[in-house]
Amino acid sequence: MTPPATDHGLVELLEAHDADACASWLETTRGLEAVRVLSRLSEEQREALLALLEPEAAAEVIESLPEPQAVDALEGLEPETAARIIGELPSDEQADLIGELHEPEAEAILERLEPEEAESVRRLAAYEDDQAGGLMITEYLAYPESAQVAEVLRDLDDNNEEYARYDVQYAYVTGDDGVLLGVLALRDLLLAPRGRALHEMLVPIGACLLDLDPIEKVIGAFRESHFTGLPVVDGSGALVGVVEREALEHALAEEADETYRASQGIIGGEELRSMPLTLRARRRLTWLSANVLLNVLAACVIAAHQDTLEAVIALAVFLPIISDMSGCSGNQAVAVSMREMTLGVARPGDFLAVWRKELSVGLINGLALGLLVGSVAWIWKGNPYLGLVVGGALALNTLVAVSIGGTVPLILKKLGMDPALASGPVLTTLTDMCGFLLVLGSASLMLSRLV
Amino acid sequence: MTPPATDHGLVELLEAHDADACASWLETTRGLEAVRVLSRLSEEQREALLALLEPEAAAEVIESLPEPQAVDALEGLEPETAARIIGELPSDEQADLIGELHEPEAEAILERLEPEEAESVRRLAAYEDDQAGGLMITEYLAYPESAQVAEVLRDLDDNNEEYARYDVQYAYVTGDDGVLLGVLALRDLLLAPRGRALHEMLVPIGACLLDLDPIEKVIGAFRESHFTGLPVVDGSGALVGVVEREALEHALAEEADETYRASQGIIGGEELRSMPLTLRARRRLTWLSANVLLNVLAACVIAAHQDTLEAVIALAVFLPIISDMSGCSGNQAVAVSMREMTLGVARPGDFLAVWRKELSVGLINGLALGLLVGSVAWIWKGNPYLGLVVGGALALNTLVAVSIGGTVPLILKKLGMDPALASGPVLTTLTDMCGFLLVLGSASLMLSRLV
Repeated sequence: MTPPATDHGLVELLEAHDADACASWLETTRGLEAVRVLSRLSEEQREALLALLEPEAAAEVIESLPEPQAVDALEGLEPETAARIIGELPSDEQADLIGELHEPEAEAILERLEPEEAESVRRLAAYEDDQAGGLMITEYLAYPESAQVAEVLRDLDDNNEEYARYDVQYAYVTGDDGVLLGVLALRDLLLAPRGRALHEMLVPIGACLLDLDPIEKVIGAFRESHFTGLPVVDGSGALVGVVEREALEHALAEEADETYRASQGIIGGEELRSMPLTLRARRRLTWLSANVLLNVLAACVIAAHQDTLEAVIALAVFLPIISDMSGCSGNQAVAVSMREMTLGVARPGDFLAVWRKELSVGLINGLALGLLVGSVAWIWKGNPYLGLVVGGALALNTLVAVSIGGTVPLILKKLGMDPALASGPVLTTLTDMCGFLLVLGSASLMLSRLV
Repeated sequence: MTPPATDHGLVELLEAHDADACASWLETTRGLEAVRVLSRLSEEQREALLALLEPEAAAEVIESLPEPQAVDALEGLEPETAARIIGELPSDEQADLIGELHEPEAEAILERLEPEEAESVRRLAAYEDDQAGGLMITEYLAYPESAQVAEVLRDLDDNNEEYARYDVQYAYVTGDDGVLLGVLALRDLLLAPRGRALHEMLVPIGACLLDLDPIEKVIGAFRESHFTGLPVVDGSGALVGVVEREALEHALAEEADETYRASQGIIGGEELRSMPLTLRARRRLTWLSANVLLNVLAACVIAAHQDTLEAVIALAVFLPIISDMSGCSGNQAVAVSMREMTLGVARPGDFLAVWRKELSVGLINGLALGLLVGSVAWIWKGNPYLGLVVGGALALNTLVAVSIGGTVPLILKKLGMDPALASGPVLTTLTDMCGFLLVLGSASLMLSRLV
């Protein structure tokens, strides 16, 4: 649709300092194409663009950028400019970005926001990302119980523009000290006498979150209700925000993405190839160096059996197969445990039930894989004992691998560690050690029949 | 909170056929705890529970179950009962479930729905899950352009209960043949003269989706707008549904979960440990058998160099390390490519740019890992040439691994294959073959210095 020439287009408009043309480029270039071009600008170009645009348009650019790039860009801008852009964002994104900035830059920006807004951002940024308080927005409608229908309607009319981005199906009704009393469907206001006071028509709150509730509670609360948003109160019962169903789903998508990245060894935050080389290399290397040490540990098992290996060199061909296949079987079990924990079907305490279920699958698959690889070994060297050693070790080690893979995520979760991150390395190290020991140990015992 | 005793509670109430008590158990047991107990019932127990409950309560149980369990349960029920439960679900969930059922069961249920509802479910179920049509719901408000404000308000009042679960911030205005003309903010209706016709006050549609639009377009459209929902029209311009932002986020979360599962070798649909053993073993084995063949292929490289290996048995200790570390480095690159494709930052055509970026990281990390493992080899055997062979091979193979890992997902995507599923096996096979060849080939060349 949009010709690739527009890549150059934006850069050239930027170099000509043509603010209007940049703004209209952004308005006409749609969706993912714009994201792609914006995220491929150099850091300097992105900062220049943000400084050039009106705050509102710059805020839209910030919203469309991947978070790490948005954070870097804000840090590179004058605090004054950054604060004007931040001021245009919805409250949850303000808090997310401020929370990701380095302390001095965050402070410099907060000082330049309106005091009330800065206070609200600070409060939101203090919550964890996976707490109700970290998921909520502070753009909601709330009126005191003594207000009358006519006042609400007038307020809606007066602030039409500001409320345009609010989800305004419901207005909340509060009492003394902002304590949440109930809710009004805006539809009901349509037909109510204008002089009626809100406390006469409010509906008691069906479901409500506490600001410190963990995400599991938020998931549970949304499962039970059909509302698009749920109010959040603090310890004193005062209304402090609203979690929208969409924000919860977004957080779950982020969490699933993170699980995948962690399982593949991308840690310490998201990586984009536009980030500095040294940062990317260092983060990846952190994970790799830990892994290399675990690998060396497993290789020690082989080193301890060099004599056996020397006598039956064919075994060396099968060691990587056993290592890799056990890893695969174990990772399948890890993936099922991770999913069952996300769905709430399995809890860390269900250790034994999970293990039993894995043993039966491991028995079937271990036998199948052991037969397959054992036959290959037998046919290749014409020695049934080689097949027995290799196939038997793979069959047994598959049992070990699914047992470890199924239960380790539950154990790590119970210990408060990130199962997505640590399950893989723990699994492969243990299954490698056990697999090498099974092959080489049984080969040592049957050495006379193998040579 | 809820004592574990409630696990037994539900089963006992169920065995006593006490419908009211089951319903009140469900109402008092909250969120994830209910999911856990429900998903751990036997299939027969779940079916008995659904048959016992009122359709509305049964529909809530269906909504809270993981999809595979919900599908199995519906298939096990009398079509009459299943149809009554399906009738209580929102349109997108109806379509999802009907789409997952086996053909005969789906038909039996559809025949028992009201003809109009069945027709609508059929239409929705025909869309792919990742099309705008597959994401949309058909619960929305639409009025003809000739209608007057008073009629709309009357309709809202008359159908108060039915509309309670709709997202009713906007009402759509349609012309002849249901063609979408514009939108009304319900708030504006509040203050409008009751006799005004809708065509006098409608706001033209800012953004609108086509029913066949792929999910990338839907993401793009929501990036550009602040609406919580976007209307969907068919090829003739007629309004056919609404995609809510929440549904998009939910689909993205599902996709990310699937990416993770596929990367770990859980394919052919989600696995829960409550599913039949044979199904679970068979699905996992499908993936494992393909992998074992690829592994044997890579092992052939070792088999071809048995003489070298026999002469320098220490090399056998390092083969699994090189295989595993190259796999890790490559998988990191896979994860970054998958993420950049999700974010829209990288497209399949960006092949060369991605490769260049990976080469620089691979160079740094390859050198670091090669030095580390090479030093271990040198110190262990006191032979610098062994260190050179092992370290050099790992360094070079890291370059190979990140090149393959970074680009293979883009290539698979371009070929229309699932990169999450196939990247891993392609990567490990190629890097294993290349890594074994590098170690054993260079060792053959330097054999005199190694023994």
